Amino acid sequence: MFDVVAFDADDTLWHNETLYHASQESFYALVSPYASREQAEQALYQTEMGNLKYFGYGIKSFVLSMVECGIRLSDGEMPGSQLQKIIDLGKGMMQAQVTLFDHVEDVVRRLSQTFRLMLVTKGDLLDQESKVARSGLGSYFWHVEIVSEQSPASYAALLERSHLSAERFIMVGNSLRSDILPVLELGGWAVYIPYHLTWKHENEIEQDPGNERFFEIEHIGLLPELLERIKDHD
Amino acid sequence: MFDVVAFDADDTLWHNETLYHASQESFYALVSPYASREQAEQALYQTEMGNLKYFGYGIKSFVLSMVECGIRLSDGEMPGSQLQKIIDLGKGMMQAQVTLFDHVEDVVRRLSQTFRLMLVTKGDLLDQESKVARSGLGSYFWHVEIVSEQSPASYAALLERSHLSAERFIMVGNSLRSDILPVLELGGWAVYIPYHLTWKHENEIEQDPGNERFFEIEHIGLLPELLERIKDHD
Repeated sequence: MFDVVAFDADDTLWHNETLYHASQESFYALVSPYASREQAEQALYQTEMGNLKYFGYGIKSFVLSMVECGIRLSDGEMPGSQLQKIIDLGKGMMQAQVTLFDHVEDVVRRLSQTFRLMLVTKGDLLDQESKVARSGLGSYFWHVEIVSEQSPASYAALLERSHLSAERFIMVGNSLRSDILPVLELGGWAVYIPYHLTWKHENEIEQDPGNERFFEIEHIGLLPELLERIKDHD
Repeated sequence: MFDVVAFDADDTLWHNETLYHASQESFYALVSPYASREQAEQALYQTEMGNLKYFGYGIKSFVLSMVECGIRLSDGEMPGSQLQKIIDLGKGMMQAQVTLFDHVEDVVRRLSQTFRLMLVTKGDLLDQESKVARSGLGSYFWHVEIVSEQSPASYAALLERSHLSAERFIMVGNSLRSDILPVLELGGWAVYIPYHLTWKHENEIEQDPGNERFFEIEHIGLLPELLERIKDHD
């Protein structure tokens, strides 16, 4: 039925947005002499969006945006020692423990006995490689692909390079924008596992993913059963 | 003779260190109220080395190190507007024109008719992908591989994934540390093209690459002739 079951990593296999949230809270506290929480939230999101085209995704980009936003919100008054704290938040994030979601270890191990598993994620190479290593899941994956953007074009290139057809490829993830819609667009299958903390950039989409190859489950523990059902139905 | 001719990108195919040098010059000027040029040079290199384990290679890491170093050299006195200028240097670098070295276009086109060509480079995904696109050379390459570190392990993984043997793989580059020694260690071939501006981290090595599979040429225009000589000799 499927040659490959592919997974997004951050907030699909392990907690990630919690790390960003914790750093954002620290950032809002650091800029509280200059801006209300609401102003700070809005300004940070705007700065991040504006910087995507320069710095892309990932922790380093996030840290650069926080520094820039802190400078702007304080009209350049924020002391160097405070700005250094923002950079130190990033260093902490780069080395934070990787905490798996419930069921992940069991599900990934079981599925790896039946399917070739792939990890497809965006962000900084060094950061993502290091998280895969720290997760302890690396050996279950046939291939780990880290891309700068999870777009239809990057999935198409990945499928071609790996000699896979979209009809036999299923992607599992928490982001409609990055994990679900591009794969459906190529004729592949997708399993959406919503996560309440998902960064709003990832689910600000207008398309309805409604599609006979689209599924939604509550948590990853339900994935093996879903794959069985798809197989039986087919 | 060779299944693949692989190239490093930065300072092998196109100018890169010149961009870093220009930004460093701007940085030294920005911190000149607080530190002599020599102090600033030394402090920046130390900050970069200390941050490698957190932020890896590439422009974003470099910018974070400049910001951190500026804060430290000025004892936190450097105004936000000046720190913002450092971040803006990074944005400029991310979008700078890609300037090919002499002979590159011609050599790459000619060799692509005989060999499968590969690009192997480290740094930020987004930045490197974007440079390949801007270089106009993308279509000559069979495969582009961007890694977080050009180590023997990462070359070994690349060869395995691409079903290549080291004995039939030759790597061309300007860094002994990243392009030459790891490939020789695996039993591959390597062509070193020294470049006077190469970042000192890349050539601070103790090993003598002396090896019958090691070659050095003055510029990339001499590469096709060298490959002919190797073939005839074999």
